[in-house]
Amino acid sequence: MTMLQGRASELDEANPLRHCRERFLLPEGTTYLDGNSLGALPAAVPAAMQDAVHRQWGTGLIGSWFAEDAAWWGLPQRLGDRIGTLLGAAAGQTVVGDSTSVQIFNTLTAAARLRPHRRVLLTDAGHFPTDAYLADSVGEMLGLEVRRVTPRELRAALTEDVAVVAFPAVDFATGECWDIPGLTAAAHEVGALVVWDLCHAAGAFELALDAWNVDFAVGCTYKYLSGGPGAPAFVYAAGRHHATMRQPLTGWTGHADPFAMRGTYEAADGIGRARIGTPTVLSMLALEAAIGAFDDVDLATLRAQSLSLTGFFIECCDELLDGRGFETVTPREPERRGSQVTLRHPEAVKLVPAAAERGVVGDKREPDLLRYGFNALYNTHADALRAATVLAELTA
Amino acid sequence: MTMLQGRASELDEANPLRHCRERFLLPEGTTYLDGNSLGALPAAVPAAMQDAVHRQWGTGLIGSWFAEDAAWWGLPQRLGDRIGTLLGAAAGQTVVGDSTSVQIFNTLTAAARLRPHRRVLLTDAGHFPTDAYLADSVGEMLGLEVRRVTPRELRAALTEDVAVVAFPAVDFATGECWDIPGLTAAAHEVGALVVWDLCHAAGAFELALDAWNVDFAVGCTYKYLSGGPGAPAFVYAAGRHHATMRQPLTGWTGHADPFAMRGTYEAADGIGRARIGTPTVLSMLALEAAIGAFDDVDLATLRAQSLSLTGFFIECCDELLDGRGFETVTPREPERRGSQVTLRHPEAVKLVPAAAERGVVGDKREPDLLRYGFNALYNTHADALRAATVLAELTA
Repeated sequence: MTMLQGRASELDEANPLRHCRERFLLPEGTTYLDGNSLGALPAAVPAAMQDAVHRQWGTGLIGSWFAEDAAWWGLPQRLGDRIGTLLGAAAGQTVVGDSTSVQIFNTLTAAARLRPHRRVLLTDAGHFPTDAYLADSVGEMLGLEVRRVTPRELRAALTEDVAVVAFPAVDFATGECWDIPGLTAAAHEVGALVVWDLCHAAGAFELALDAWNVDFAVGCTYKYLSGGPGAPAFVYAAGRHHATMRQPLTGWTGHADPFAMRGTYEAADGIGRARIGTPTVLSMLALEAAIGAFDDVDLATLRAQSLSLTGFFIECCDELLDGRGFETVTPREPERRGSQVTLRHPEAVKLVPAAAERGVVGDKREPDLLRYGFNALYNTHADALRAATVLAELTA
Repeated sequence: MTMLQGRASELDEANPLRHCRERFLLPEGTTYLDGNSLGALPAAVPAAMQDAVHRQWGTGLIGSWFAEDAAWWGLPQRLGDRIGTLLGAAAGQTVVGDSTSVQIFNTLTAAARLRPHRRVLLTDAGHFPTDAYLADSVGEMLGLEVRRVTPRELRAALTEDVAVVAFPAVDFATGECWDIPGLTAAAHEVGALVVWDLCHAAGAFELALDAWNVDFAVGCTYKYLSGGPGAPAFVYAAGRHHATMRQPLTGWTGHADPFAMRGTYEAADGIGRARIGTPTVLSMLALEAAIGAFDDVDLATLRAQSLSLTGFFIECCDELLDGRGFETVTPREPERRGSQVTLRHPEAVKLVPAAAERGVVGDKREPDLLRYGFNALYNTHADALRAATVLAELTA
């Protein structure tokens, strides 16, 4: 047993979340390090889906929208509140529904409308593409100028004409994690509102949206929340904005009295107004079962384990990949890391599938990045070591 | 056996689609006439969902986006083409994704942008609420005047300043079916574009969107297509508009090269540009299995059976409910009917749940409408007779 093997065993044995791995159905022989793209299958999902299909849909039929033992109508807000507990959000401020792209458009527009005399939308120059595209679209529709700066340049770019600041909590490519409370406070100092993209943060580490005075946030649920492929997004809107926020996607389920079928839109009180169209029930029920994997999990412990995993992976890469053309892109300082480690290598696009063939699944970002995401509910230090070992074998 | 019972038996025995009822799992003892709100569970769905969860997600993991035996990435267009065959749309013009509300906003905006110097959006005064709300929202964002007229008033309201005409194929409340080809041609005569809402038409009767020269259409898949609760919507965009249409919801999956992760949106060629965000895979796989119920079904035969069912139900109501305060709202002329029959009764809101307790499931629209939808793939003339009989018992 090598030193690293010994360390991995010790760390995994001491892991207080070790029991959580059984909450997922991981294929034998696969080291799955792509939970930052699609979380593994939670063990509770298959039975939940069978119940959803046979009992709730097949037998309950239309009655399941309001039946006590299905209550589909309440899903967007019920799930929102559950996710809110992982975001540091009190109940009544989070709703689940639609895709992240749709929520970005809807939320950026609603936020900008709260600052009607300001003409600038400030967004991350390295933002995930869909965020960039939708910022441009909102800018075109509302007549806003979209300015792109990096998170490091953000403070200097904050002027009194900025309506909305739209940034990611974690850079999707590098895995670098930004200072949400500090940047939120800076934006507020000039009177701007913030919209955080939490796709790579929700379920990965502790968040405190209420305490940080965040205005709005959106995120997906298929990465660290393991809600399933294309699981619906969530949106958080701080309670202080509910009375005045106006979204462009005025779907019927956000109406104050949706079944009165009135001809004119009147937004519901509270977070209910953030609902859009008819919820995708089957995907939401899978997500509801998946989130159960977080029951009794302390998020500070989760964060500590996540940092232990990513830190150990960097250590393994340092030792095993030295001189083989790899560069660690993700910051080494724990507080600057999300829950993924990105490596750079000129052959990245070949190495990622080659490693997957040997059972180590990550993903690539062209032209030269390898991304390995660690979900502390199911990944182990042995996974980290195996990934580095396979990359070493492939570049021997 | 009464005369009506005899007629029902004869008609059901002669039904060329009789074998299709086995393609659905209907609960024993229930007469389900609410398929115009939520279609019954197709028998192929449970196994498809099990495969989706265990094999495609659990085992295939991230690889299932592009694996030959899952191919999630292709779902929106693969499913779109399949639904297109039910719409009279050649391949490459239909995409599945997001909710109907989101698609209405996206499509109305895209259509209006193709007529940039016209300032009027003409929509149905009795349109389903979400269509009305989103027309208002699009009007606000683009600076269009929204004019509401009934389908009967539509021709007179068509002027040279109309950019877009947005109407339903079937009135959701009354079940009246409008003249899609005639009204489309009238709109085109003044240079306007049409956006049809097919929620109560797709899968209910024959459509010929290509032959009728329709510009755009949207619709849900959870009514007559039986795709499951909140199943994703579809959008049809005629091929002649692909090169120039620009949607506001510029999500990353509609990009010409989505995995290049470029910072600027460049729409894909063809119908791919109508894609928005990450597709809700589980809901789409349920829908894909559900649509199999239409395999080898001739839509002219389906329409004939549907009209036989609704016609027979009206006949049963005439005979059994005479003098009990009911009025048949849906037109008696077959060519003016969708696939539902709406009755008016002052006690509708009590009668609908009371009938459901006796096993006849329909739905109500306040203040005084009872709606009974007929899906010719699984409903029978015996269902129609039982529904009228139960309403007669309740008002005896």
